[in-house]
Amino acid sequence: MFNILIITHGNLCEELKSSVEFILDNKLNRKIFTISIDEDSREFDTYSNRISNFLIEANHNIIFTDMFGGTPSNISLPYFKKGFVEIISGVNVPMLLKACVLENNDNFYEAVKIIVSSCKENIIVAGDLEIA
Amino acid sequence: MFNILIITHGNLCEELKSSVEFILDNKLNRKIFTISIDEDSREFDTYSNRISNFLIEANHNIIFTDMFGGTPSNISLPYFKKGFVEIISGVNVPMLLKACVLENNDNFYEAVKIIVSSCKENIIVAGDLEIA
Repeated sequence: MFNILIITHGNLCEELKSSVEFILDNKLNRKIFTISIDEDSREFDTYSNRISNFLIEANHNIIFTDMFGGTPSNISLPYFKKGFVEIISGVNVPMLLKACVLENNDNFYEAVKIIVSSCKENIIVAGDLEIA
Repeated sequence: MFNILIITHGNLCEELKSSVEFILDNKLNRKIFTISIDEDSREFDTYSNRISNFLIEANHNIIFTDMFGGTPSNISLPYFKKGFVEIISGVNVPMLLKACVLENNDNFYEAVKIIVSSCKENIIVAGDLEIA
């Protein structure tokens, strides 16, 4: 259905990938790629080339970035392509887990909506729970 | 106002802390501590002791965990204390940034609400933006 690319400052992307792989073990439905941005390197052409190379591996792709307005999001936004390449910022573990276990589905737009909703529902505050 | 403890599987907590420190540079308003959980170690008593030691450093504390239902959340929940220790799962960079820059404020409950709202608002989908 779609591949996943996580782009963040530093090695956050690698740790997010490791967490998801650990939690899902062998139930991972799709490929996860990562690009770690070093702000000091300023090798933005290299990063753009890597994004391009990733995107040709599948018809549909979701790029997850750490925060809107940061370099990882800024270098991703030019690759947005309606219905084919989506970019979601504010990545966290529940968001990636949902993206990884979604069954194949022809509707890419619906998949993105499901991932974002699931993420927001899984930001849970202990004080709001009945156990509190 | 409050200290921050990030508890996650693996080194995700360290990378989240590094990202926030890098982005905010010297504008960090509060202390961030981390506990990295190794599921294989099963040293849950050690982890609990470390949480206890962290919590005595400030009157108010927020514990951020990677996902609800995982070990980091499960070992944190017993430390929930209404109005003093809050636990928020689904941690991401925007959530931590907001927590780090919040001005001192006597209302701990309001601070938690602001952090969670800010996080949800900062999960942004490129296809929903006007630029799309």
